[in-house]
Amino acid sequence: MKILIKNVRIITMDANMNEYDQGCIGVEGAVIAYIGGEEQLPQDFKADKVIDGKGMLALPGFVNAHTHSAMSIFRGYANDIPLMEWLSEKIWPMEDRLMPGDAYWLSLLSIAEMIMSGVTVFADMYMFMDQTAKAVARSGIRAVLARGLQGPDPKAEQRLAENRRLWEEWNGQAEGRIRIMVGPHAVYTCDREYLEKCMDLAQELGAGIHIHLAETRHEVEECRRKYGKTPVEYLEGLGLFKHHTLAVHCVHLSREDMDILKDNGVHVVHCPISNLKLGSGVAKTVDLVDKGINVALGTDSAASNNSLSIMREMNFAALLSKGINENPVLLPARQVFSMATKNGAEALGWEDEIGCLEVGKKADIILLRQDGPHCHPTADPITHLVYSGRDSDVDTVIVNGKILMEGRQFTTVDLQEVYYKVEMIQTRIMGRI
Amino acid sequence: MKILIKNVRIITMDANMNEYDQGCIGVEGAVIAYIGGEEQLPQDFKADKVIDGKGMLALPGFVNAHTHSAMSIFRGYANDIPLMEWLSEKIWPMEDRLMPGDAYWLSLLSIAEMIMSGVTVFADMYMFMDQTAKAVARSGIRAVLARGLQGPDPKAEQRLAENRRLWEEWNGQAEGRIRIMVGPHAVYTCDREYLEKCMDLAQELGAGIHIHLAETRHEVEECRRKYGKTPVEYLEGLGLFKHHTLAVHCVHLSREDMDILKDNGVHVVHCPISNLKLGSGVAKTVDLVDKGINVALGTDSAASNNSLSIMREMNFAALLSKGINENPVLLPARQVFSMATKNGAEALGWEDEIGCLEVGKKADIILLRQDGPHCHPTADPITHLVYSGRDSDVDTVIVNGKILMEGRQFTTVDLQEVYYKVEMIQTRIMGRI
Repeated sequence: MKILIKNVRIITMDANMNEYDQGCIGVEGAVIAYIGGEEQLPQDFKADKVIDGKGMLALPGFVNAHTHSAMSIFRGYANDIPLMEWLSEKIWPMEDRLMPGDAYWLSLLSIAEMIMSGVTVFADMYMFMDQTAKAVARSGIRAVLARGLQGPDPKAEQRLAENRRLWEEWNGQAEGRIRIMVGPHAVYTCDREYLEKCMDLAQELGAGIHIHLAETRHEVEECRRKYGKTPVEYLEGLGLFKHHTLAVHCVHLSREDMDILKDNGVHVVHCPISNLKLGSGVAKTVDLVDKGINVALGTDSAASNNSLSIMREMNFAALLSKGINENPVLLPARQVFSMATKNGAEALGWEDEIGCLEVGKKADIILLRQDGPHCHPTADPITHLVYSGRDSDVDTVIVNGKILMEGRQFTTVDLQEVYYKVEMIQTRIMGRI
Repeated sequence: MKILIKNVRIITMDANMNEYDQGCIGVEGAVIAYIGGEEQLPQDFKADKVIDGKGMLALPGFVNAHTHSAMSIFRGYANDIPLMEWLSEKIWPMEDRLMPGDAYWLSLLSIAEMIMSGVTVFADMYMFMDQTAKAVARSGIRAVLARGLQGPDPKAEQRLAENRRLWEEWNGQAEGRIRIMVGPHAVYTCDREYLEKCMDLAQELGAGIHIHLAETRHEVEECRRKYGKTPVEYLEGLGLFKHHTLAVHCVHLSREDMDILKDNGVHVVHCPISNLKLGSGVAKTVDLVDKGINVALGTDSAASNNSLSIMREMNFAALLSKGINENPVLLPARQVFSMATKNGAEALGWEDEIGCLEVGKKADIILLRQDGPHCHPTADPITHLVYSGRDSDVDTVIVNGKILMEGRQFTTVDLQEVYYKVEMIQTRIMGRI
């Protein structure tokens, strides 16, 4: 299949930061075969499908570097209550009622929302991850999946075995759209021995590690009390950062913690909305960026956000850094846009194939309409994207060379079927709402 | 004209907080004639137009209690730079090039954006306000307009005269959709004598006052240095709060300032996004609400936001209060929704006619679709609205009994004409972008 997108404004985010006011993109199979002016397009490029991008903006797809997609069932379920009450009285009892097959439909719901807001790849950590993998395979999106691991407890070994099986069955599958990581949940849900088992598994598989880190003040205090170290110091001591690490949240860090993250090349996932909603606080994003740490963006789950929109995270990241520091110069639009694309791909260890628009890279491309009042008057499109962009601007989404949405219509997901299934699950586990 | 909206879920925000899972709303002329179950609808109510609200949510329209609509020309123009440089090197030189007729089209652009995000009334303060009034009249939206007043300077008296003329020509006009306030800009742009002239004018006209207050740390420090008082103390000393006062921002307040605002019944407009973007800080919204001060929401202008979406402000207000205070219980969804509707109407002094859905009140009604993935699974609709709502959910907007948008299509504004005119203005004052 060959696709030609023409007449389109392109922001590539490639090494030279190339941009084209009116360019075209040729897609051949799963990869970008051409990008640039229309006149230089090879004459033998015969497109099966031509998309007129007039008035639209072509961007690399957004990277959602942290979510729990099957938790979509909890969107709007019990908000505005304290964190531990939320977990222990609301979320956990309901999670116990979830069945594996549910996770397929709940993941599809999240995937549909992500595609509709321009996300082309996400990193997930949860249970029933093989079901999420099936939803990824079917929907056409790209993902880095990890089994959430807690232990010790009676199921701890089984979880490790599931993570291993997930890797064996799914790593590199679905036309290469799925990669697998190991998912130790956090320092407060895994003991030292169990974390070491997770690291051994990562070592054996050659997989990266996806972990929550320094999310709350309480987590840091408890870790200090128990181990005499911050969570970051503790994990460094264990040697966890020798693995490619996706460290999520990092709200409460000391200067020394930041040095450790920098020295170990740890990738930080900033989840500003979830951190606000759960009352965790505001990460020192500007300090992390200034230190040269790679910072990506994540939505966390629909239970604590309640959206899965990286455009919203960009908006919050840019605005919070300015407001909290009382300095309107901090974290300008293009820096935030890089966090949502290029940095995200690096955080996922996937920068060899995605994160920018470039010949030879995978064709993960989104087209945004620019015809809403909020896009006028004309200005730098990245400024408009970060400060006034709407999810509904996303018109077309291509992943791995395949069109997943065009004119906001899905080609792979039947939304009504997903809604119906999700409603059945909701009725079963929560009763009639 | 009689309109019947049927099969719709209704949140009224009336005194009894009535809600209907499946109700109908009858509109007769400019007012709501019936609200409730379909079976009780008077049999002699013959609708000229029936809207099937199946799957939709009917709400009182959102109140944007502070903006400068003609500043839409500056959306995306010079972001990420320091405030004084932004004003003195970017905004002010361009403002000097604006001509009165420009403000008509620029206001229409903002009005279109507001209607598309469910705003049915806004409070504005700027120059060329008669042009904004014309745009309000034509578009069908509702507004409280004030001439922005600074002085002394050579044009200070003329501005006062313009505010008076605005009142004479427009107060109560456009089928009663326009009301006029007096708009002294701020304590740092008006001297004592000029503020007193503004108060005299407000007294004479029986008009409210719309003023920026305690926006930045610098404003408070300067006021203390100059007058030995905080801006709030200073204005109270002048007797300004004897007038109905719309006090915008109120980011930097002492406990004593809050007492003064409470004792004087001052209405506060919280503009969380603008305060973040300009690096002004984060208002102590929870403290204001706890004290019993009426807090409404405002977007400020497209230059410092860059959106005019009250749904976004709700989202930011709810999340910021939780995150900054590290307490997920604060400012729950319905409290924020009240700020966007009922409280807004009170802040504008218009609660006799708008702010809730009730028989006899003006028919300012919005219908929101609930069919996006972000609205699933079903949960409390106000929770979904505040935490995962999208502007694009707004399907239909009715103001004063007239349909301004249906199925996201405008009935009163030609968007392409507005875009064309705005582009011409942009080219003239800024050169080709």
